[in-house]
Amino acid sequence: MQSIGASKLSLSSLSSQELWEKTGRLKSGSEVFTFNDRKESRFLLAPTHEEEITSLVANLVTSYKELPLRVYQISRKYRDEARPRQGLLRGREFLMKDLYTFDYNTEKALETYEAVREAYKRIFDTLKIPYLVAAADSGNMGGNLSHEFHFISGKGEDTLISCSECGYVYNEEVSDGHAVGPIVEEPLAIPTPSETGVGTENPPAISTALWTAISKDKKTLVRAWYPRYSSQDLGDEPGEREINSHAIKAIAKSTGVDLDTGVENPVALWLSDIEKLSATNSSIEPTHKVLDIYDSQIVPYSRPPLSGLPQGFNTAEQPIQFALLNRFPGTQDGLSLTRVLDGEKCPKCSHGSLQTHNAVELGHTFYLGTRYTEVLKAKVFVDNSVTKPGEPTHNRKPQAVPMEMGCHGIGVSRMISAVADVRADIRGLNWPRAIAPFEIIVIPARNLDAEAENVYDLLRKHTDTSDVILDDRAKQVGWKLKDADLIGYPVVVLVGKAWKSAQKLEVHCRQLGGLQDDVHIDNVVEYVQSLLQRL
Amino acid sequence: MQSIGASKLSLSSLSSQELWEKTGRLKSGSEVFTFNDRKESRFLLAPTHEEEITSLVANLVTSYKELPLRVYQISRKYRDEARPRQGLLRGREFLMKDLYTFDYNTEKALETYEAVREAYKRIFDTLKIPYLVAAADSGNMGGNLSHEFHFISGKGEDTLISCSECGYVYNEEVSDGHAVGPIVEEPLAIPTPSETGVGTENPPAISTALWTAISKDKKTLVRAWYPRYSSQDLGDEPGEREINSHAIKAIAKSTGVDLDTGVENPVALWLSDIEKLSATNSSIEPTHKVLDIYDSQIVPYSRPPLSGLPQGFNTAEQPIQFALLNRFPGTQDGLSLTRVLDGEKCPKCSHGSLQTHNAVELGHTFYLGTRYTEVLKAKVFVDNSVTKPGEPTHNRKPQAVPMEMGCHGIGVSRMISAVADVRADIRGLNWPRAIAPFEIIVIPARNLDAEAENVYDLLRKHTDTSDVILDDRAKQVGWKLKDADLIGYPVVVLVGKAWKSAQKLEVHCRQLGGLQDDVHIDNVVEYVQSLLQRL
Repeated sequence: MQSIGASKLSLSSLSSQELWEKTGRLKSGSEVFTFNDRKESRFLLAPTHEEEITSLVANLVTSYKELPLRVYQISRKYRDEARPRQGLLRGREFLMKDLYTFDYNTEKALETYEAVREAYKRIFDTLKIPYLVAAADSGNMGGNLSHEFHFISGKGEDTLISCSECGYVYNEEVSDGHAVGPIVEEPLAIPTPSETGVGTENPPAISTALWTAISKDKKTLVRAWYPRYSSQDLGDEPGEREINSHAIKAIAKSTGVDLDTGVENPVALWLSDIEKLSATNSSIEPTHKVLDIYDSQIVPYSRPPLSGLPQGFNTAEQPIQFALLNRFPGTQDGLSLTRVLDGEKCPKCSHGSLQTHNAVELGHTFYLGTRYTEVLKAKVFVDNSVTKPGEPTHNRKPQAVPMEMGCHGIGVSRMISAVADVRADIRGLNWPRAIAPFEIIVIPARNLDAEAENVYDLLRKHTDTSDVILDDRAKQVGWKLKDADLIGYPVVVLVGKAWKSAQKLEVHCRQLGGLQDDVHIDNVVEYVQSLLQRL
Repeated sequence: MQSIGASKLSLSSLSSQELWEKTGRLKSGSEVFTFNDRKESRFLLAPTHEEEITSLVANLVTSYKELPLRVYQISRKYRDEARPRQGLLRGREFLMKDLYTFDYNTEKALETYEAVREAYKRIFDTLKIPYLVAAADSGNMGGNLSHEFHFISGKGEDTLISCSECGYVYNEEVSDGHAVGPIVEEPLAIPTPSETGVGTENPPAISTALWTAISKDKKTLVRAWYPRYSSQDLGDEPGEREINSHAIKAIAKSTGVDLDTGVENPVALWLSDIEKLSATNSSIEPTHKVLDIYDSQIVPYSRPPLSGLPQGFNTAEQPIQFALLNRFPGTQDGLSLTRVLDGEKCPKCSHGSLQTHNAVELGHTFYLGTRYTEVLKAKVFVDNSVTKPGEPTHNRKPQAVPMEMGCHGIGVSRMISAVADVRADIRGLNWPRAIAPFEIIVIPARNLDAEAENVYDLLRKHTDTSDVILDDRAKQVGWKLKDADLIGYPVVVLVGKAWKSAQKLEVHCRQLGGLQDDVHIDNVVEYVQSLLQRL
């Protein structure tokens, strides 16, 4: 953070509900802990600090000449997580590094964004653990450019998709529903019997599956028709397809429908809303709608029957409107409703093949624009020399513009957990040099304590780390070696058997393929130094 | 903390109300922020961590051989402060260093306590700011030995009393009401007219003042009779006396009466409780009591009339018992009800004179005993080799005993404020070397940037601090010097006028009497080094 000129600060964890209401981020059901003090002042525990820093900066910065401003902190954040799980990976209290940036126009803000992204890459590079940088969804941060930094991990709750050819990486969450390739036009398919509950005599050429969801206003039932199995060319065994709810949400949203994909029985909820309304409403205007969305591999079927209806319910008698969608609104693109399967074609370069990964998000960069600075009136004065460099000096009229903001986070405590998970093996943890509690441990065998202390002093003084520890506990050497493996120090130096006969030390390094070498005391500094450079 | 073998840890700020109810510290009106999560689990924001650490240790430590255990953290704490004030000095969110210690018997626990107290002295010594260590009240921590570390400061909210001879220092809060010296036995005094509202024809030999309070159960009205002015021998001008409510509380407590000194009109509250009761109660047993407490300088007056009674209220008709106290219960000591005035005699050594100080509490050591470990079942097994070293080996029966605990805090954020306050002068802040953001600042005059950078490199490499900063901002040298004074760096090195002619640097040090010296570049390392050693 300091390499990009950011200053460290420390913001209060207690923030005000009023402030968060101004930016519209405090809604009922939001993952924020709220409470009142003894005087009934309304507080919250900050899960992030855009509001706090923006209102602070609004009061301190007035001229574009004070920009760029970059400030960061490393502090605890709080979230009323519905399902805290996996220890440090998803908790109610966590440690985060957050950086906030302020610029006076888009061009400068994008320069800042790139500088931060490069700094984040350097941070992740020092861990020497493979990571992916994915194009990301900016969620409720309100931004319009964002990237995520991920470790690939079986414990990950995100799905990333990467291309073998063009290097494109994206989070499944950003799937917009656009399909690649031709749209199936021949009438190969009708809904399968198992889904509709209605028998049919034409066996389907491609097995079709159905997924339903309801809009937040309960007026629209969305039915998504998608191929049950992957198409032939991906391999011998057809893979089973899963719906991509993110894609369907994006498609529905483009038609003005806001879906709630968390409802368990959407059809029942939709029907009960119709019945509630028809009891009081005699209008013949349709109030409810069925929106059928078709994957580009499925040929649309004309108004397939509604399944799960109660006996005697006649859709024709109800004020229901049917609609069909098999092109992305406003385009000729077909729709892709399913989650990517390994081996599919890349939508970006059209010739690479895609691979999916479970991943853990550890860093996130956002370009926020003026989402917060507009509302919280964080403005600076710029003059025409900035906005119109050609104008003569006497025409320079200062003008107040909202600052362009960025926010950038690294999950510090969850990184401990993710690194532990990715690097641990049967013998224990295995810390990268950059975050190991100590880089080197010196362990004496019986009666070699003084010699070990000398080795400790030697390494501490003459290697380029002072992160050395001496295990001087009253335990057996075998126990200490096991404990060192459990804790996962990068380099273990044992003052053991070879010491008395040859003044040699045993150097272990699990990270370099379980390396173990006897090294003479005269060479040990140079040897350990060369190991550290590879870690 | 590390010098006494303490390990650093990090406890959650979110704690559970249930846990705090077990130790009885979560009561209505307590200064703790509480709230529920979305599943109605009951949380609190920890203001301190005795409960949390004790329940953790209870699960991890089972044998006395694992003791002593000393763990500390530096983290934010939260308190629903009724009157947050003076910025960092008393806020709702603050940074605290807290150390918790565990031992298996009192002897070991007291050894630990002394080790911590010595470590705290070393910490405060490094600040080179005068401080007092006072015998303290252990308040609601439940301990039985405690000391406070204070700066003397006009902004302080504590009152310390120190003796000129014996070095005894104590917080006014620990006043127990014992008087020093003889008790006045001659009938010099009766209550003054102004207090009782009743005229009198005998002018009092010593002017007496009255202070009243009521017990928490509203049954007992305490009247404290004390001298209005200091006795003659303290000086020519008699000082006005103030009541010491801590002393009266302590005296009342020794008779089994728990006082609430926060009630505004105790007599009215006491009367209304009598009237409420007499409406329903026909018993002639006295239900209410007046306890008259007399300072040793006041001669008890036989049942002085109650002031502030409504018309027609006859105390004789009411079930009221009168009691008088002018000796400390169980002793022959007289009572001292007033706050100490400068120049009074020391109660400890009886010949030194006392001085009072406004002070800011910055550190506190507590020996807690088993207050928390009993309730939270934090026990270790000891065997007879420990409890009865003389016993033969086959008689060693392991026995579970609650651990003996200590807790020890330093207010980190309030220390910033207190140090700033004590050390600042008209030119700005003035940080002790130990906590200065940077110990040395190098400032270039115009066109001497490269030379200043060389000086910066020189000082950074060859003095025993790396806390050096170069002011390379695009500002005038005068502005930079003023800014350096405002920020309060201990040492300022200016590369200015004397550079070109004589290769000399101007070294400033406000902390050493506004020292300013021209020092040749060849001597600057040695010179600055010698300054640092005096800071």
